[in-house]
Amino acid sequence: MRNFKFTLQYEGTRYQGWQRQESSGNTIQGKLEALLSKMCGQPVRVQGSGRTDAGVHAAGQVANAHMETDKTPEEILEYMNTYLPEDIAVIRVEEVAERFHSRLNAKGKTYCYRVINSALPNVFDRRYTYRIAERLDVEAMREAAGLLCGTHDFSAFTSAGRSKKSAVRTLEEIRIEARGEEIDFYFSGNGFLFHMVRILMGTLIEVGLGRRGAGEMTEILNSRKREMSGALVPACGLTLMEVRYK
Amino acid sequence: MRNFKFTLQYEGTRYQGWQRQESSGNTIQGKLEALLSKMCGQPVRVQGSGRTDAGVHAAGQVANAHMETDKTPEEILEYMNTYLPEDIAVIRVEEVAERFHSRLNAKGKTYCYRVINSALPNVFDRRYTYRIAERLDVEAMREAAGLLCGTHDFSAFTSAGRSKKSAVRTLEEIRIEARGEEIDFYFSGNGFLFHMVRILMGTLIEVGLGRRGAGEMTEILNSRKREMSGALVPACGLTLMEVRYK
Repeated sequence: MRNFKFTLQYEGTRYQGWQRQESSGNTIQGKLEALLSKMCGQPVRVQGSGRTDAGVHAAGQVANAHMETDKTPEEILEYMNTYLPEDIAVIRVEEVAERFHSRLNAKGKTYCYRVINSALPNVFDRRYTYRIAERLDVEAMREAAGLLCGTHDFSAFTSAGRSKKSAVRTLEEIRIEARGEEIDFYFSGNGFLFHMVRILMGTLIEVGLGRRGAGEMTEILNSRKREMSGALVPACGLTLMEVRYK
Repeated sequence: MRNFKFTLQYEGTRYQGWQRQESSGNTIQGKLEALLSKMCGQPVRVQGSGRTDAGVHAAGQVANAHMETDKTPEEILEYMNTYLPEDIAVIRVEEVAERFHSRLNAKGKTYCYRVINSALPNVFDRRYTYRIAERLDVEAMREAAGLLCGTHDFSAFTSAGRSKKSAVRTLEEIRIEARGEEIDFYFSGNGFLFHMVRILMGTLIEVGLGRRGAGEMTEILNSRKREMSGALVPACGLTLMEVRYK
């Protein structure tokens, strides 16, 4: 069996997330598996680098699949883009070593959360951003972000019930870029817990609004309690930008 | 009666254009009139600077309406953005002189047509752009654009059946900005005929693909015949950017 690596983009708006579901869920993984199974004439399983939640977008999700096919990577790319719905696109197909695994081999990921800080609605970017009317203090958020970076137990920044495994992760960087009405938050790390980016964002926004002090971040991390951190922000502002491999 | 000027943004995707229709059409003007009539408790007519076709977007459409209301412009803006669907937004409301007329007083307009020149689908901008896989020659399009600018009879660049009035217009500028995979075409002029920007675009694209010489533009203008010019490109790539007044 040949092994193929796919780099994917999708608008998550109308999907119930990445992961295939037992019932009739409309998922990205489900769409890809149905198409590649049809292409190969036998069931194909697609392994993603990780799940994205319902409504979350991807500009650089990575997946792989073992398949029996005579097609070249270029032919597979063209076949997929011909038949995929217009909110999913394959931007690269590569043949990789048999043992390549998109999740287990991933070394790091970058997510972007886009905020529109304006009293006026944003018509054109509304599906990809979260709008906050009250003025955000970017410098206070940068200070808080600095305290969140590093290797920590992020139990306070994940939703319950997914895993009993270690919640220790390394958050390499939170880069905050403000230009005009838009503030983009880039989160890079070696791995992210369930809802982690969206809860980090909700906490940073509360700092930006002056409802919390930046200095509270260390206390929240140390508590390891979800009730200490901020609200979960909407999925629509979040995009998986990149998955890094060695 | 007080007179109010509105600056509007909308995503045209799910509308049958600007203009209110006799039957049950879903139009921008229809949405605005229904909302303002409700706000005022009596019928309100909204006058736009011009029609936009089905599927065309606006980042700076201008309209005006005479209304009986005690509300301030700020209150009207907030009321409208609360009740309008999320694909229409009001970005400015101003009280203007009784005689101000958004169409008759308009001195010029700028439209933008966005092309994605790539073999790969563009997931995120697909509703606002038109994708062309074959490589476009930007310099050849600039040469053709230069010949189209100026004061001409644009009969060759309009769809039939709308008017017997003069087709003479001044096209002040066609500015072509290429960056990465995107090529944006800005058309500024004192007025535009039915389908004029989309037929100019279709003709420029044929030049960019090498199917026509740039030098043919003068011949097409002089012919005043629609069959001499290029194809009508899709509405989705077009956005009304600005309407200028004295």
